[in-house]
Amino acid sequence: MDDNEPKLTEISQLGEFGLVDRLTKELPLTHESSVKGVGDDAAILHYADDKDVLVTTDLLLEGVHFDLTYVPLKHLGYKSAIVNFSDIYAMGGTPRQITVSLGISRRFAVEHIDELYAGIRHACGVYGVDLVGGDTTSSRQGLVISITCIGDVAKGGAVRRDGAKDTDLICVSGDLGAAYMGLQLLEREKVASAGQKDFQPDFHGKEYLVERQLKPEARRDIVEALREAGIVPTSMMDVSDGLSSELLHICKASSTGCRVYEDRIPIDYQTAIMAEELGMNLVTAALNGGEDYELLFTVPLTAHEKVEKIPGVKVIGHITKPDLGCYMVTRDGNEILLRAQGWNPLQ
Amino acid sequence: MDDNEPKLTEISQLGEFGLVDRLTKELPLTHESSVKGVGDDAAILHYADDKDVLVTTDLLLEGVHFDLTYVPLKHLGYKSAIVNFSDIYAMGGTPRQITVSLGISRRFAVEHIDELYAGIRHACGVYGVDLVGGDTTSSRQGLVISITCIGDVAKGGAVRRDGAKDTDLICVSGDLGAAYMGLQLLEREKVASAGQKDFQPDFHGKEYLVERQLKPEARRDIVEALREAGIVPTSMMDVSDGLSSELLHICKASSTGCRVYEDRIPIDYQTAIMAEELGMNLVTAALNGGEDYELLFTVPLTAHEKVEKIPGVKVIGHITKPDLGCYMVTRDGNEILLRAQGWNPLQ
Repeated sequence: MDDNEPKLTEISQLGEFGLVDRLTKELPLTHESSVKGVGDDAAILHYADDKDVLVTTDLLLEGVHFDLTYVPLKHLGYKSAIVNFSDIYAMGGTPRQITVSLGISRRFAVEHIDELYAGIRHACGVYGVDLVGGDTTSSRQGLVISITCIGDVAKGGAVRRDGAKDTDLICVSGDLGAAYMGLQLLEREKVASAGQKDFQPDFHGKEYLVERQLKPEARRDIVEALREAGIVPTSMMDVSDGLSSELLHICKASSTGCRVYEDRIPIDYQTAIMAEELGMNLVTAALNGGEDYELLFTVPLTAHEKVEKIPGVKVIGHITKPDLGCYMVTRDGNEILLRAQGWNPLQ
Repeated sequence: MDDNEPKLTEISQLGEFGLVDRLTKELPLTHESSVKGVGDDAAILHYADDKDVLVTTDLLLEGVHFDLTYVPLKHLGYKSAIVNFSDIYAMGGTPRQITVSLGISRRFAVEHIDELYAGIRHACGVYGVDLVGGDTTSSRQGLVISITCIGDVAKGGAVRRDGAKDTDLICVSGDLGAAYMGLQLLEREKVASAGQKDFQPDFHGKEYLVERQLKPEARRDIVEALREAGIVPTSMMDVSDGLSSELLHICKASSTGCRVYEDRIPIDYQTAIMAEELGMNLVTAALNGGEDYELLFTVPLTAHEKVEKIPGVKVIGHITKPDLGCYMVTRDGNEILLRAQGWNPLQ
């Protein structure tokens, strides 16, 4: 590369979504087996008459996505697999296989990689997924983890981002912001431990936050509960970059607006206490924190009663016509414009 | 990680294959759609009644797999896609989709990534493959490229490594060692250019070597020719780590021995001239050079006449009973034990 090339554009000017939009613009799908390409939690492929194949992939880099100072390798392996399973569940599908590629720098010993793999294998065991391939190489730049997950879903049954309609209810599983607060806590203890030998981090009363950050689960149970209740979501995503960002994705893809209500957003009390301790705005953390791996989905208004009966699911708002925009209604009745302030991995 | 942990094993002690063996030992395939997991060019998945789905993945890291001093980004994109297509062809299949994950460090501008993507898109266009997904993130150091390719093959028709039988003929497409010699040439010119402005590398008469290194092709034509000739290989692999290494994989997986004949190994004259110039053993380069992306396959003895008629395919030896071991017969009739001296990405 010549550093003197004219008119170069810094990647941070575009951000991840801007860059992906640019790179994947006018990407033709030429083969009959390619149903849906870039732009959802997973690609949809047509290889069989009775089901569709789903494919998703995640790249995790040391120093960008994880810090081995406080992330045990076994947990890292588990989480690396889970984030991929979550993308398949977010399409209403079931993860079946993963491939695992690792780039390993010299400071890792075989036993370290055993630990990482033990976590991946454990996740596979819990979710009934087979590890079927991968690539292993050395790395100059710390640990590199690239996982691809293949799953399936009933033919035509994949739940995409683009199906939300005016008056649909917006639902979310579990609670939000805890993983982000867990990260803040781990970072705080890392700073406190600097230079101290035998430092014992203090997670008392905040175990849930640490667990949400280090050992998230994919919401297979919610997908199953929806299926059992006979509810077909009109759109669905997993919350990896933060509720605001994901809601905006759904509204953009579906050409709608939305209203979510501050007092409906599910937040655990440990998250609230931690936000208080850190002097952070609690709702901002819940809206923009990311890494929750909960499911965000929309259902027709007619499914209201049924969806409210599913444990762990909360209706937080509704879809509107596009000209009404995307807003959160605060407790005092004001409307705040939703922005994608989620974690930007390209900054 | 605690550097004082006891009894840690350096990864270089095991090498790539040793590490992969250890990590993937006793890896259960629990789901009915998982036909064949780790241990071939691609995993074989059963999602449809009439075809099998193939999945392969490659991780390419700057400073380990490529040097941007002399590899243009567009070529790098092209090659990154090709190496995955090659793995699908090596199963007798057809590549259909890829996902592309990139880790991008700060010294790259949007226009650089455009170039890389242009190469990937070009490869997709040439081979009729759709780009359907991926992940894009920042990297602290250097460029990370992780590509996964999905393909298909007639049900039960995937050509694995483990089907070679005593008396089968060993065949290889194209010629070997040129990509390795291309790498030597590029490295030589890089050293020669150090500190010189406007240095013009001299590739005169060696264009083929440079092309083989920078812009390899996948042998779709050979897979099609075999199909048209009605030849079903008993085993097949692509030559990425070197002929010796791949032959040993086939013999180990098939529980056989082999004999290949030095005077039958196809080598281009530019490869021979370059080896002479560098004072390197030509056959060693052809056996162990790697990155040829030619197809190595075995066919029953009865296919001898038919296979010899396929342009660009050469019979280089035959499979033996396992107790005869794996040897190359030299021009003077000596037998040299084949060793996997191919490029080890974990050293």
